[in-house]
Amino acid sequence: MKALWLENNRISLSDALQPHKPNEALIKIRKAGICSTDLELVKGYYPYTGILGHEFVGKVVEAEDASWIGQRVVGEINVVCNQCEQCLNGRSTHCENRTVLGIVNRDGTFAEFTTLPIANLHRVPDSVPDEMAVFTEPLAAALEIQQQVQIKPTDRVLLVGAGRLGQLIAQTLALTGCDLRVVARYAHQQSLLKARGIRIISEEEIQPWRWDVVVEATGSPSGFALARKAIRPRGTLVMKSTYKGDMSVNFSSIVVDEINIVGSRCGPFEPALRLMEARQVDPTVLIADEFKLDEGVKAFERAAETGVLKVLIEA
Amino acid sequence: MKALWLENNRISLSDALQPHKPNEALIKIRKAGICSTDLELVKGYYPYTGILGHEFVGKVVEAEDASWIGQRVVGEINVVCNQCEQCLNGRSTHCENRTVLGIVNRDGTFAEFTTLPIANLHRVPDSVPDEMAVFTEPLAAALEIQQQVQIKPTDRVLLVGAGRLGQLIAQTLALTGCDLRVVARYAHQQSLLKARGIRIISEEEIQPWRWDVVVEATGSPSGFALARKAIRPRGTLVMKSTYKGDMSVNFSSIVVDEINIVGSRCGPFEPALRLMEARQVDPTVLIADEFKLDEGVKAFERAAETGVLKVLIEA
Repeated sequence: MKALWLENNRISLSDALQPHKPNEALIKIRKAGICSTDLELVKGYYPYTGILGHEFVGKVVEAEDASWIGQRVVGEINVVCNQCEQCLNGRSTHCENRTVLGIVNRDGTFAEFTTLPIANLHRVPDSVPDEMAVFTEPLAAALEIQQQVQIKPTDRVLLVGAGRLGQLIAQTLALTGCDLRVVARYAHQQSLLKARGIRIISEEEIQPWRWDVVVEATGSPSGFALARKAIRPRGTLVMKSTYKGDMSVNFSSIVVDEINIVGSRCGPFEPALRLMEARQVDPTVLIADEFKLDEGVKAFERAAETGVLKVLIEA
Repeated sequence: MKALWLENNRISLSDALQPHKPNEALIKIRKAGICSTDLELVKGYYPYTGILGHEFVGKVVEAEDASWIGQRVVGEINVVCNQCEQCLNGRSTHCENRTVLGIVNRDGTFAEFTTLPIANLHRVPDSVPDEMAVFTEPLAAALEIQQQVQIKPTDRVLLVGAGRLGQLIAQTLALTGCDLRVVARYAHQQSLLKARGIRIISEEEIQPWRWDVVVEATGSPSGFALARKAIRPRGTLVMKSTYKGDMSVNFSSIVVDEINIVGSRCGPFEPALRLMEARQVDPTVLIADEFKLDEGVKAFERAAETGVLKVLIEA
């Protein structure tokens, strides 16, 4: 089968064997999304050789439990052992023996087929089209914030960053009724937010020491510095992005101001599907472009352009 | 009056005017404790010129409300405006206009007298002797952990550091019934813990990725690194110490492991007094030495010796 293969910081369209794993369903990929993590993997943020991709919607074509065959599905990306301390304590996304679809020791979704255990799959409601369902994984990651932190309707919430993940976070935070402001660098990012009635704010307008919750979704030290300046004493600073290398931070001021810093990663799929089914969010507005798998390398070039939001690959 | 004066990283016994502030009570100091913050101030961790000291027990000798005169008291160290956003939202220890006893723009307690607003004072129960009451402020700081973080009786809790504050934290954490282990460098620190049935653990015995809550009370980057290694995914890392300068930290791993970092500073006085009255804690075991105010410079030298716990100054 055709697949986008990453090796030595280079991505190429390759011929790969159609995957087969015992106890896993074989899934025909319909659409897959390029995420910032994919771009970082290409840059070498984390050592990985194999088929890239972890955001997808597909159809089950083979499975031990025949009731799954023909089902349109999305899939959780962490394949877990169910035996380690993290799994046995309800933290299976932190499984100590996990493989991660297209990220850690497991071929991903920029291919004609992929495999996943049935336990990782979620049926997609008929009313959620492919171009929406392909956003389930990043939307779930956005919802992980509310899974970890209570956002009160009266909270003043600042979101720093309105890229791929930032836009989804903005849409889900807005549902809480909180007093949300978003720092968005590019005009088209601002337009998408305004179209949903979400308020933007310039860096200069941000009052320091005033925000109950600040979400950092830029992955840059300057974004973190802005977030740190904005948060009030005893406020919660949610970190949704990974950072290259170490970051130098004044921890004394974090102690003195009693700041709460919360790292946040993968989230729950079912709430993401529910919100899309009810059209409470609309991730499709993020779609900037779509390519066939044959043009996958071009798709990556497009996704790497400054400010571009979601690029999809159709298998 | 006599006082210990800090100027240009040098502490000296000086003659100072007896303080007088409108709307504040005049307090005759009975005992005052030397804290790590005092030693850091001498080293220049924070610019301060004036009378040092913020841990004390004393007796009110002048006050507008005569019912306070003659009362034995301890006092909260943040003198606040009651008008700023932090004060108006129940975060008065974070008052934006605060002065802080012996730390920020306010003469402290290594003196014959000090002043504080009545609102800062707490009466000391008769059954709590001076040498116990003088620990109210640091004991309150220890209790701030439980004020911020729910410690479950089933939690595995690691405390890194068993110095002045660490010993008090160990005593208060032990009251939760949690499965507590303490990293204590020095033999006498270990003995104090063992005498209370608190378990110590060597660095080598610490299983990484296993602890629900880790409290960092060393103020050193190596202590932070140990705490970071020990904490489980989605665990809570409480930072009780200030650090000199910036610290370089890998934030990607904090995001991936969804760690919760909580800065923690001043705490509630009344619970600290209650626990001492009920003898649930006994801070007096920390007392290493006691000096007269006249020998205050010697007291500081003694407090700065490696591993020494609490040195008191009698006014």
